[in-house]
Amino acid sequence: MDYARILREIAEEVRPLVGQGRAAEYIPPLARVPRDRFGMVVRTVDGEVFAVGDAGERFSIQSIAKVFGLTLAMRLEGDAVWKRVGREPSGSAFNSLVQLEVEHGIPRNPFINAGALVVLDLILSHQPDGVDLVLDFVRHAGAESPVGYDAAVAAAERATGHRNRALAHFLKSFGNLGNDPDRVLDAYFLLCSISMSCAEIAAAFQYLATGGLSATGERVATERQVKRVNAVMLTCGVYDEAGDYAYRVGLPAKSGVGGGVVAVMPGRFVATVWSPCLSEKGNSLAGTMALELLTTKTALSIF
Amino acid sequence: MDYARILREIAEEVRPLVGQGRAAEYIPPLARVPRDRFGMVVRTVDGEVFAVGDAGERFSIQSIAKVFGLTLAMRLEGDAVWKRVGREPSGSAFNSLVQLEVEHGIPRNPFINAGALVVLDLILSHQPDGVDLVLDFVRHAGAESPVGYDAAVAAAERATGHRNRALAHFLKSFGNLGNDPDRVLDAYFLLCSISMSCAEIAAAFQYLATGGLSATGERVATERQVKRVNAVMLTCGVYDEAGDYAYRVGLPAKSGVGGGVVAVMPGRFVATVWSPCLSEKGNSLAGTMALELLTTKTALSIF
Amino acid sequence: MDYARILREIAEEVRPLVGQGRAAEYIPPLARVPRDRFGMVVRTVDGEVFAVGDAGERFSIQSIAKVFGLTLAMRLEGDAVWKRVGREPSGSAFNSLVQLEVEHGIPRNPFINAGALVVLDLILSHQPDGVDLVLDFVRHAGAESPVGYDAAVAAAERATGHRNRALAHFLKSFGNLGNDPDRVLDAYFLLCSISMSCAEIAAAFQYLATGGLSATGERVATERQVKRVNAVMLTCGVYDEAGDYAYRVGLPAKSGVGGGVVAVMPGRFVATVWSPCLSEKGNSLAGTMALELLTTKTALSIF
Amino acid sequence: MDYARILREIAEEVRPLVGQGRAAEYIPPLARVPRDRFGMVVRTVDGEVFAVGDAGERFSIQSIAKVFGLTLAMRLEGDAVWKRVGREPSGSAFNSLVQLEVEHGIPRNPFINAGALVVLDLILSHQPDGVDLVLDFVRHAGAESPVGYDAAVAAAERATGHRNRALAHFLKSFGNLGNDPDRVLDAYFLLCSISMSCAEIAAAFQYLATGGLSATGERVATERQVKRVNAVMLTCGVYDEAGDYAYRVGLPAKSGVGGGVVAVMPGRFVATVWSPCLSEKGNSLAGTMALELLTTKTALSIF
Repeated sequence: MDYARILREIAEEVRPLVGQGRAAEYIPPLARVPRDRFGMVVRTVDGEVFAVGDAGERFSIQSIAKVFGLTLAMRLEGDAVWKRVGREPSGSAFNSLVQLEVEHGIPRNPFINAGALVVLDLILSHQPDGVDLVLDFVRHAGAESPVGYDAAVAAAERATGHRNRALAHFLKSFGNLGNDPDRVLDAYFLLCSISMSCAEIAAAFQYLATGGLSATGERVATERQVKRVNAVMLTCGVYDEAGDYAYRVGLPAKSGVGGGVVAVMPGRFVATVWSPCLSEKGNSLAGTMALELLTTKTALSIF
Repeated sequence: MDYARILREIAEEVRPLVGQGRAAEYIPPLARVPRDRFGMVVRTVDGEVFAVGDAGERFSIQSIAKVFGLTLAMRLEGDAVWKRVGREPSGSAFNSLVQLEVEHGIPRNPFINAGALVVLDLILSHQPDGVDLVLDFVRHAGAESPVGYDAAVAAAERATGHRNRALAHFLKSFGNLGNDPDRVLDAYFLLCSISMSCAEIAAAFQYLATGGLSATGERVATERQVKRVNAVMLTCGVYDEAGDYAYRVGLPAKSGVGGGVVAVMPGRFVATVWSPCLSEKGNSLAGTMALELLTTKTALSIF
Repeated sequence: MDYARILREIAEEVRPLVGQGRAAEYIPPLARVPRDRFGMVVRTVDGEVFAVGDAGERFSIQSIAKVFGLTLAMRLEGDAVWKRVGREPSGSAFNSLVQLEVEHGIPRNPFINAGALVVLDLILSHQPDGVDLVLDFVRHAGAESPVGYDAAVAAAERATGHRNRALAHFLKSFGNLGNDPDRVLDAYFLLCSISMSCAEIAAAFQYLATGGLSATGERVATERQVKRVNAVMLTCGVYDEAGDYAYRVGLPAKSGVGGGVVAVMPGRFVATVWSPCLSEKGNSLAGTMALELLTTKTALSIF
Repeated sequence: MDYARILREIAEEVRPLVGQGRAAEYIPPLARVPRDRFGMVVRTVDGEVFAVGDAGERFSIQSIAKVFGLTLAMRLEGDAVWKRVGREPSGSAFNSLVQLEVEHGIPRNPFINAGALVVLDLILSHQPDGVDLVLDFVRHAGAESPVGYDAAVAAAERATGHRNRALAHFLKSFGNLGNDPDRVLDAYFLLCSISMSCAEIAAAFQYLATGGLSATGERVATERQVKRVNAVMLTCGVYDEAGDYAYRVGLPAKSGVGGGVVAVMPGRFVATVWSPCLSEKGNSLAGTMALELLTTKTALSIF
């Protein structure tokens, strides 16, 4: 498979879309990211890396980090995770309180904000020092350059995160948050502010294409866990666009409002793409098209 | 009208209901109130007071205080109040976040919790010292014994008020809270913890039966304001039981989860009743029956 | 009270609003009504009639007829009516299926379409010949010129009433419709197509201002029934504008999408107004303002 | 892969679950099916067939037929299908009217009842003779014994299908049904009443595992269409249990309330299972477990 050529073609074909849509503007550091960025990486299970565009530039990975959180929670708690969070697509906005009320405080899945708060609450109950455990996992999985939080993003999340505060207190009111809501929120705002490049993300997600082995060949998850994280990504990874993604892209994927998307073709590759402007549903517009082109051109998808 | 006899009859007839239903148990101080209490007062516009049972015992007036808040906000802001809060019945639970999300942060009315938070926010923007303005208004309207907060109730509200915290942060996320959510919540928890007796409440509500004159004859609201507060009480004063109240009782009324209810027959009287056990909808079970008997026996209702 | 002068003033003051808003356009016969019509009648409990504008012109009374249906059902079934329909304001659109699903087939009140279908179903179970019973009641209550259905309106309702058909089958699926849905729908479409003038409506509604006596002094409802119909009108009579009506007008009222509104001041008068253009909520724009002016100028309201 | 042995093991292991849960009881012919039935078939892309239990017994395939409908509509209309129906998981019950109202008459996906009605409406606009086109497609795809409708099931669906009638009229009210609702409903009730055995279903679904070739090697869909039908099955095929299925089974699947489930492992096999008792979400309880065991034992899933 000539991934290098395919990536060049994709970069060419998506160019008209780059800058279309709207960047996430709710926090200043995201609003300031140049709208013309586009980068993409394909990293095969053999460790070969193909890149195009701004694939080395770091950006705010936002909700992509929720996959690390979920994997870590499954390692710590096993299937007990699912007593406190569902794994069904939400059918509504990622930060909706409606469904949480209707379903009595059990978030629909671990990738909507309420679900990620519950997952972090689980992790914090194991590790009082908190969200650094997630960064440890990222470093362990990715095994390359050190990654960290973007302090400006974290501060901005904290200052504007009123709805996430509402979600945390709402979860607490249902008894589905063991720790102090403010502590869980601090961890959440940090988690959302991790900065990584497409290349770094692809390395860190390697384990989801290899059945659990990290980029350096260490086992960081079981084969069973990997299949399940991939399944949850497919049904819940791209907000209320899961069906459209499965239809158009056909790969498990997780997006973030920073404009990044990571997709996994089990046994073959991890693909990461970044372009900051978003569709109405909150997924990178050019990024989604790039992934659709990738599965069309390679004729590889899970279906 | 022989109110003394009517009250005696009512006390007799509701006795089997007293203690039926469930007391509010979400905060310990309310759960500890003896379930067998029943008191009732009718205070005519001429200042005559008729009482039966535990009419002199103070209890936590809870949401009844929201009427004072609304009257005060209308005095301070006039019709501008209605830019930030609606005046339609909610059709759902008093602390629901669903409707708030669907209606983009504008609470349906000033008597659901979200609406009361917005009303307090308005008041706090006028008076930084806060909720004492409400107590001033109560004293001014009632003009009798000093009333105050129950510190144990306020502390318990503060400790368990996760859902109210969620509501406040949710309002903030919609931009419908000017002050710091924690400050508004502090005021709200205080407001809910005012302690008064049936007799004291009836005196303080005198202005709603007299077209705006307090128990000592001072004007505390305009005639127009009084009509409108009464209208909002009729359509929104008893949670999701407004229709049932209008049908059975036929008077504007406001209830609290402490088991108190106050009802107004404009031009004739204020009636207050207290019995701590509640219907499923959250209104005093014996209290509602007592008010229904009052309008049946006096053949007085607004319809 | 100089009602004649007051009506002249009102007609003058609302003139700029006449023709504002949108007429109901979903059925051609309603869309063809001239938009510049305005008529108003006050009929006192003594039978004095004051009129202004197009008060003698017949129009499609639409949902106003639901009050006749409810009164008739209460006469036939007493409180058993309330086993199959609630009496709470709906908090949503008059033809919503959402609330019906959430509340398992029990319509919130008898004035939303679903509730009126259930009321008609009750009546049809008593009187197989159907909705003529309603016209009989109207003639009996009003005791003046014969009124009837507008065949063109009925045909148009039948042709376009897909959502009402959905409601009827939905009620049937919950077991809350005893008769064949198509038969209930036929009756419903007829009921909505009754034509009356402001003067005729005021006469037919006389019983709600007199405690149950018709325009010719016959008892057509008990005092208790009258109070309760008035209560249901106040909380549920004007779609999702009940709170606003109580606040601005302060009278029990029932509106129809034909632009008519009838309001009751118990013990004093019935007021009817007609102007075809509607507010967003579906109530006559000029009509609502006219009723607000009436209660302001007379200083009469139930609050 | 020793499918014969695996199927024997599965039949053994699921035995305790067979008869647990509740059979669909809303129509008498389904309620009468013996609760102890269990059958399963694996049919490989090479045409090898492995069977266990009641794999040859016909049952009512119910919603499984919606996959034939969708494939046919995509052949007839291409991507234009998606203008009138979405492809997102519903997050609510399969026959809910709520979401249809919130989303203005566009069903969330072609596998909820509302979506299947729209798909049939599309087909009927091409082929006035109606739903026989679907049976033609089934015969064409399966190429074996003739299949047909169960007249008793169809009659029972017709007699009790009040909620589906409500859905059809509701769609019509939004303008999303071109044909007469009663005609679309007739086709729908027929579609739900097709009877097939596990073996017959596996043959007819062969095209979804082979990239579009039928059991006799004819092309009945393009490769692109097949991938997309599989994607829609994965995200929307098992009612509100899509996430759980992806997690536990990891294959695109479609279930019916008759207790059948068909699952596809692209490039490898089609698996069909039948056992009439259902989980709370409406999927065959023993069937789901059998499919989970199949992917566990074969270590084959799309993830």
